[in-house]
Amino acid sequence: MALAGVTAPRGWVSGTAACGIKALTAGASALPGELRDDLTVIFSASRCDAAGVFTTNKVKSASVVIDQLHLQSGPIQALVVSSGNANACTGAQGFKDALRMAKLTADRLDLDPQQVIVATTGVIGRPLPMEAVKGGIQIACADLAAEHGSASALAIMTTDTVPKTVVAKVRIGGVEVTVGGMAKGSGMIHPNLATMLAFITTDAAVEEGWTAAHVQRLADSSFNQVTVDGDNSTNDSFLILANGAAGNPPVSAGSEDSDALEGAILGVARELARMIARDGEGATKLLTVRVEGAPDDGQARLAARSVASSSLVKTAIHGGDPNWGRIVCALGYSGSELAIDRLTVAVAGLTVFARGAGVEVDLEQVRAAFQGSEIEVFADLGLGSGRAEAWGCDLSAEYVRINADYTT
Amino acid sequence: MALAGVTAPRGWVSGTAACGIKALTAGASALPGELRDDLTVIFSASRCDAAGVFTTNKVKSASVVIDQLHLQSGPIQALVVSSGNANACTGAQGFKDALRMAKLTADRLDLDPQQVIVATTGVIGRPLPMEAVKGGIQIACADLAAEHGSASALAIMTTDTVPKTVVAKVRIGGVEVTVGGMAKGSGMIHPNLATMLAFITTDAAVEEGWTAAHVQRLADSSFNQVTVDGDNSTNDSFLILANGAAGNPPVSAGSEDSDALEGAILGVARELARMIARDGEGATKLLTVRVEGAPDDGQARLAARSVASSSLVKTAIHGGDPNWGRIVCALGYSGSELAIDRLTVAVAGLTVFARGAGVEVDLEQVRAAFQGSEIEVFADLGLGSGRAEAWGCDLSAEYVRINADYTT
Repeated sequence: MALAGVTAPRGWVSGTAACGIKALTAGASALPGELRDDLTVIFSASRCDAAGVFTTNKVKSASVVIDQLHLQSGPIQALVVSSGNANACTGAQGFKDALRMAKLTADRLDLDPQQVIVATTGVIGRPLPMEAVKGGIQIACADLAAEHGSASALAIMTTDTVPKTVVAKVRIGGVEVTVGGMAKGSGMIHPNLATMLAFITTDAAVEEGWTAAHVQRLADSSFNQVTVDGDNSTNDSFLILANGAAGNPPVSAGSEDSDALEGAILGVARELARMIARDGEGATKLLTVRVEGAPDDGQARLAARSVASSSLVKTAIHGGDPNWGRIVCALGYSGSELAIDRLTVAVAGLTVFARGAGVEVDLEQVRAAFQGSEIEVFADLGLGSGRAEAWGCDLSAEYVRINADYTT
Repeated sequence: MALAGVTAPRGWVSGTAACGIKALTAGASALPGELRDDLTVIFSASRCDAAGVFTTNKVKSASVVIDQLHLQSGPIQALVVSSGNANACTGAQGFKDALRMAKLTADRLDLDPQQVIVATTGVIGRPLPMEAVKGGIQIACADLAAEHGSASALAIMTTDTVPKTVVAKVRIGGVEVTVGGMAKGSGMIHPNLATMLAFITTDAAVEEGWTAAHVQRLADSSFNQVTVDGDNSTNDSFLILANGAAGNPPVSAGSEDSDALEGAILGVARELARMIARDGEGATKLLTVRVEGAPDDGQARLAARSVASSSLVKTAIHGGDPNWGRIVCALGYSGSELAIDRLTVAVAGLTVFARGAGVEVDLEQVRAAFQGSEIEVFADLGLGSGRAEAWGCDLSAEYVRINADYTT
């Protein structure tokens, strides 16, 4: 079986453990016999060039705060990720617990705690069940292997219905380099909110600082263009780690090799982003919004995200309605420049708006076009060469049901 | 019967007509026998000081563009408002039609077209059925009366389930002054989007420019704090018109009388805003978010609106769940300053978060508190004296049903 996710690149191994974090956080005194994995440790045999992009929410998980410090002191060599408890809004105890997760992992792997990234996702406002977490870290570190990438992707899930891993390969300086990634979705979980977590590893050798110089741009064109319900959690994290095990000549910023590596990482990041959107809570369709002809890429991103975020567009897509009025409206308040006479809009390949007015469409064709599980909205703003994509999902009654259940 | 809405102040009259605008816009060749009113003309016997705040959407209805011009050339003395067709995305024909609505109304009332405000709401992208509109303007202008304020509020409805009118009285310079208002909701209508329209009339005498100097501030604390689904339509309009018929000494900006008049108008605006939120599509509860202790009022407005807009908060409220995690999260990404240790959050009068941690609540008390049709979320940021309110509604499966129906 091919290696999957974050352990596909050379020099990367992982282990998992079932700690019962969710049940213990909810106050269970005894755990059920069958537990699913909810903790994973990921380890690189060599030191990594690493960088991250984190939530802009002013309420940040202790894990996020610790990671921002550790990335400054580096070099990173391991990650410990758990699901079921976000370790957010947990005060001083939360910071102690996040640091302890790093230290427990570092001790087992003969690293400094500053070399460990910590990520948590799940319920907020409750202390981590640290005894269980400690046991889980020991179990995970005792069985590290390159074959465990899929298990790691399962261990970080919360309300996700499928694990999300992607692998890509690219030649850099005559050497085949591998990029692997895993993510969990930004759908929201009762009784509190969950999080988008994404980790991309590679065996590429890069000059120091390469990941830091590229991570924001990569996030802007991938994870920052995913929207499920517009909420921005306390724990959102995206990390890139490059361990150099492929032995290629180190990639320097601005070179052709740099473009190739960035392209491969972007491909993995965008595919993970699409997987997250497709697996949004209650989603039945992946919505891709592609914008061209914006004055610049930044405005194209605003425009695409505005359409993908609109509750009205999302419900129309759910109902199979190529409603150009809602799309034009969402473009109008996106913050991008817009000139209605120059705008063209297509839904599922059918042009529905052009030259300032609606275009009659054949209802039979519309119904056929909406049969699929993926719908593309395309808008050409006709103003410049800026382009972007954003990904979302339809808004279904099931989303409301999932999130309205009485759970306190 | 007491006079209602925009014709409650002295010197204001209105008339209505049933034109079948919605059916004709959808392509009906013959109208049903029973039509509801869908056009109203509102007229002041004397010239008004008038000002408006309009949608910030880059895609604007022709009516909005025309109004902005007419407010500059004024003085305004009449409004013509129709529902069923937004006259947006209708190109050059749309401007011709909006100007013609003003001219037809002006001709009947012996005014200049520049003295008439035009407002439209309904389906976008289809030409107005101008023959029917013309007939409706003639009928409405032929039967102007102070008793028709309630009928006018009914005529501007689209998916609203109840008409919305408010009247307030205040003493200015020893004279009783009346403020009247009507509005229609920002809930969205199939097959396209609808709009928030709000009109406030008064018989107060004000110095020239008084309404222009106050309209934005009044909107910021009322209609700009209403959120149903975050979409900002092509036609949103709020107008204030003061005709001076009360005979009070003209109110000048900065005076005590000015504060009193502004307070009365704000009271009417806020009550209309609450009515709009309560009548959001599929809404079963009015959600009021009250923020105190922000660094300033502007940040308080951001914080309150962020909570009232959050799909996660809205679904939690629908499900009767005092979920502080979602509220703290929405405050965190609102753009307002936030220090989690200083934050207190209460839901339906029960403190659920304080001193950086959740507060245990009695589930029986929670269930009792959620029985009502109004729920208040309160947040004290503990940072300053800024305060604001925002109003929204719960997010129900019914909202999704209304907006997902196949309607093209």
